[in-house]
Amino acid sequence: MHIHTSFLYTTHFNCYNVFMKKETSNPTMKDVAREAGVSLGTVSKVFNGIHVKDDYRRRVLSAAEKLNYQVNNYARGFKTNKTNSIALLIPTLKHPFFASLTDEIAASLTRHDLRLILILTNYEPEAEQKALTMIRQNKIDGVIGLTYNPNLVVDASIPFVTIDRHFSTGVPCVASDNFGGGQLAAQKLISLGCRNLLFLRTGSDLNTEVNKREAGFVSICSLENIPYDSVTINQESPEPFYYYLQKHMENGHLVYDGIFCNTDLLASQIVSFCHKEHIRVPEDVQIIGYDGIKHFYSEAYYCSTIVQPIAQMAEAAVDLIVSKKPQPMLVILPVHYEAGNTTKG
Amino acid sequence: MHIHTSFLYTTHFNCYNVFMKKETSNPTMKDVAREAGVSLGTVSKVFNGIHVKDDYRRRVLSAAEKLNYQVNNYARGFKTNKTNSIALLIPTLKHPFFASLTDEIAASLTRHDLRLILILTNYEPEAEQKALTMIRQNKIDGVIGLTYNPNLVVDASIPFVTIDRHFSTGVPCVASDNFGGGQLAAQKLISLGCRNLLFLRTGSDLNTEVNKREAGFVSICSLENIPYDSVTINQESPEPFYYYLQKHMENGHLVYDGIFCNTDLLASQIVSFCHKEHIRVPEDVQIIGYDGIKHFYSEAYYCSTIVQPIAQMAEAAVDLIVSKKPQPMLVILPVHYEAGNTTKG
Repeated sequence: MHIHTSFLYTTHFNCYNVFMKKETSNPTMKDVAREAGVSLGTVSKVFNGIHVKDDYRRRVLSAAEKLNYQVNNYARGFKTNKTNSIALLIPTLKHPFFASLTDEIAASLTRHDLRLILILTNYEPEAEQKALTMIRQNKIDGVIGLTYNPNLVVDASIPFVTIDRHFSTGVPCVASDNFGGGQLAAQKLISLGCRNLLFLRTGSDLNTEVNKREAGFVSICSLENIPYDSVTINQESPEPFYYYLQKHMENGHLVYDGIFCNTDLLASQIVSFCHKEHIRVPEDVQIIGYDGIKHFYSEAYYCSTIVQPIAQMAEAAVDLIVSKKPQPMLVILPVHYEAGNTTKG
Repeated sequence: MHIHTSFLYTTHFNCYNVFMKKETSNPTMKDVAREAGVSLGTVSKVFNGIHVKDDYRRRVLSAAEKLNYQVNNYARGFKTNKTNSIALLIPTLKHPFFASLTDEIAASLTRHDLRLILILTNYEPEAEQKALTMIRQNKIDGVIGLTYNPNLVVDASIPFVTIDRHFSTGVPCVASDNFGGGQLAAQKLISLGCRNLLFLRTGSDLNTEVNKREAGFVSICSLENIPYDSVTINQESPEPFYYYLQKHMENGHLVYDGIFCNTDLLASQIVSFCHKEHIRVPEDVQIIGYDGIKHFYSEAYYCSTIVQPIAQMAEAAVDLIVSKKPQPMLVILPVHYEAGNTTKG
């Protein structure tokens, strides 16, 4: 132990330079044509991906490189009516599921050479509708939306793909296997010895794919003849669930031994509640969530969980947007179970 | 307990409709002029924010509304050389600090009626440079960048603002008070009784604002005559830190009683290590991180931490971009300390 700093591992601080390029007059397609000794039409064909003889193509590209010709994609968009940009409507990035989904959609769009215009809607239907007006006014090529507006007016001329919210009319939707996930959670709790089950959901009154989590859970309980209760509360606060659980304690013990929560968020809140009430997790009650959220500093899950295939969902949504004519359809992607420390396995 | 579902709180599932608008031929400015009984020039002035007589203005707006005339912002951008879009370069959204910062920047841009083009660079200098080419080609109005490219070539014609990375030349930078935060961490640990301090840092060899965290920490240790060690490791894995700590155990006890980690990520990893090694936190060693990251399901911090003012940083970066002529400057915003459960107070 000594007073001065000891760098155990040496570090060299490089100077962090930005080289500022001077603004110069940009060469035009005409300049490239002159340099290459070809017609303007040939240059235009090359930069618009239209086939020309290999020799011409080489001469154009080499002239463009020599002159440092920059394609003006903005001007091109004006002509082609394409801007190579896709808008993503999503409520917030402060929830790790939405953040991961946005991250994967951005990566997938980049692989398709498309730009992502990010629009956070904060769960507000008006913000979603306003965003669609902006999208129409700015020639954005398509929209991927995780929306909460039950009456969204979508412009039929702009490709639109939703995530988790299956509109009743011709809009393709990508979702995880919510029904299968609900079944999996029930099967897992039963196989781990639970005999009195509870389903908890922070609901909205929208008819979304997410509702199928409960339906799947219930189907297995009925099939296996396992008693269960189901509680849906249409508000964000978990307090009513705490009140419900307090009402279902007998001699300091919870009457349920297995709980399936429709999100990891709710599961984590219920786990906190149990700790406060001295209900042991997973000894007294086993809890499974839905989403697959990990601690930011490790690969550990917050709770035992049904994991959504976020990367595949992002890829599927982007594939639907880039395909020339997205067909009305529902793309369901498989989930899997991961044990955290809120179940016995 | 019964077999069937009991909805304690009734839920009505509304049908989730999307109203698809038919694609129709869009009215033009000429149509608006005819409807309003004014010249085309007057209509153009109104939509470009140029003053005309109130009566004319009212007639144009009312005609536009009647015809459902949509401003073509894209075409306008072609004329004005402005697209009202700002690109954000950021490594990833899978880290909650970057996700929150992106969320706040998006909100701030929306308040300025600007669109956010999100570009994830995954810490790759080539991806950052490639993004700048795309930005130039698409007439994007400005760039906010959290970059890791020490030799980034920035086009002087595009406003550029960095976060946390102060370039040596004329690019404005927004950062939290890293030096003051380092001082605050040292003062806090000392006031909580620590007498053998350690600073840990997962480093990069860039000369960034973040380096000042160590300098601030060291300045207080020197002033207070408190012995300390400082370890910087230029890699992402925390393993070398675990090895270092294992080497600094005596009779099962760590020789340090206070650790300042340069991120909450590292602090959380060190806390996990301590639990595994049966070193009690905060009884045996108190740990402070930097960033202010909370659990996603509550307002609880992961660890005692120096909190970055993310919303203010986002606002400041956007303000610099929208001001007509961003001046080379460094905007430093104040941090504060929040006790988590890794210190005694």
